[in-house]
Amino acid sequence: MHRTKVRIVEDALDANNTIARANREDFDRHGVTVVNLMSAPGAGKTSLLEQVLAKPSAMRVGVLEGDVQGSLDAQRLAALHVPVVQLNTGSGFGGECHLDANMVRSALPSLPLDELEMLVIENVGNLVCPAEFRVGEDARVMVSSVAEGEDKPLKYPLMFRACELVVINKIDLLDHVDFDLDKYLHHLDSVHPGVERLLVSARTGEGVDVFGEWLGARAGRPLALEA
Amino acid sequence: MHRTKVRIVEDALDANNTIARANREDFDRHGVTVVNLMSAPGAGKTSLLEQVLAKPSAMRVGVLEGDVQGSLDAQRLAALHVPVVQLNTGSGFGGECHLDANMVRSALPSLPLDELEMLVIENVGNLVCPAEFRVGEDARVMVSSVAEGEDKPLKYPLMFRACELVVINKIDLLDHVDFDLDKYLHHLDSVHPGVERLLVSARTGEGVDVFGEWLGARAGRPLALEA
Repeated sequence: MHRTKVRIVEDALDANNTIARANREDFDRHGVTVVNLMSAPGAGKTSLLEQVLAKPSAMRVGVLEGDVQGSLDAQRLAALHVPVVQLNTGSGFGGECHLDANMVRSALPSLPLDELEMLVIENVGNLVCPAEFRVGEDARVMVSSVAEGEDKPLKYPLMFRACELVVINKIDLLDHVDFDLDKYLHHLDSVHPGVERLLVSARTGEGVDVFGEWLGARAGRPLALEA
Repeated sequence: MHRTKVRIVEDALDANNTIARANREDFDRHGVTVVNLMSAPGAGKTSLLEQVLAKPSAMRVGVLEGDVQGSLDAQRLAALHVPVVQLNTGSGFGGECHLDANMVRSALPSLPLDELEMLVIENVGNLVCPAEFRVGEDARVMVSSVAEGEDKPLKYPLMFRACELVVINKIDLLDHVDFDLDKYLHHLDSVHPGVERLLVSARTGEGVDVFGEWLGARAGRPLALEA
């Protein structure tokens, strides 16, 4: 029983990686750098994108919004005249808790890839399963809110290991929450030694420019797909 | 392909409900009221339990801690001399993102059920899949942090619909976050009209006694398993 389950899971991940490679080839053909943006619910992915995308940029960025249900975040970004496509995962049983390569593939025809230099895929809010499914991205970024507590890298290590950048958001709350930043960074380095990290506040705008620069630099040198 | 997937999912949920009923019979035989405590990562489930369980109580409460990895939360509660058992979901591929009835069943032999009046099952931090799996509980409680934003009931409706009580935590942060409580409650009522709700702060202790009373009242009148 348990062996069967493991085999089904392995087959599913193999199929996912095959489709992720096909996505990646399409992205490369169009010269689009793709960032998979992940976090727990309410860590501030959309607010951060709003801040970054509201500023004038030489780079044309599109967004693929993954949500169990609804299009609230897509509407927020569309208000900034960003090309945005909504992908709902709720057609399964109560909703898939992550995006996979096939869901992303199904959205490609709706995306103006030939007009974009970068595509940000905003994943479903979840610190577990999104880390397990490559979708054809060049880089994975996670947003971690200081309101969530300093123990999160130890409790969800795969997510913190899977990303190339950890954006530590809501630093405007540091004086109001029990969050020891040094301890958090120690935990982070224990699960992903030396991973890049940025301190930002999507609310006050602090650090947002640096995140924008990081994204811009990514568009110049795409990473290899480790699917 | 899609039909097959749906059928596998339906079978899995059927099997889960069968095991959930067996768990429930065991809990009933021992006179233990069981609460399934769910939330996003870092919403404050463990901090809330620490506050409730640190106070003298006529009721003996045990805790089953569900985590992908580690035993940090179990250690925090064990320090209060609460009987606590750790259940790690990380033996699968990167870690299951929820508890299911069979995982809970595997932990029953480690729990001193005949010494308890209440068992709190602290689920994996996730607003999607935990809502889909009954584990044999009498009641489901979710903790929702004001730092996560007022749109969460609309974005994760199944979770907000699945519970009998919504504990709105971190109200000490209300002056420091962009969270319109009236709007949140309006969203909550739109997905689960009239669901019980409590405002608390596990940090300052505000409202914690009321939550403790709610749990005590539950132990007197168990709900029917709607598996």
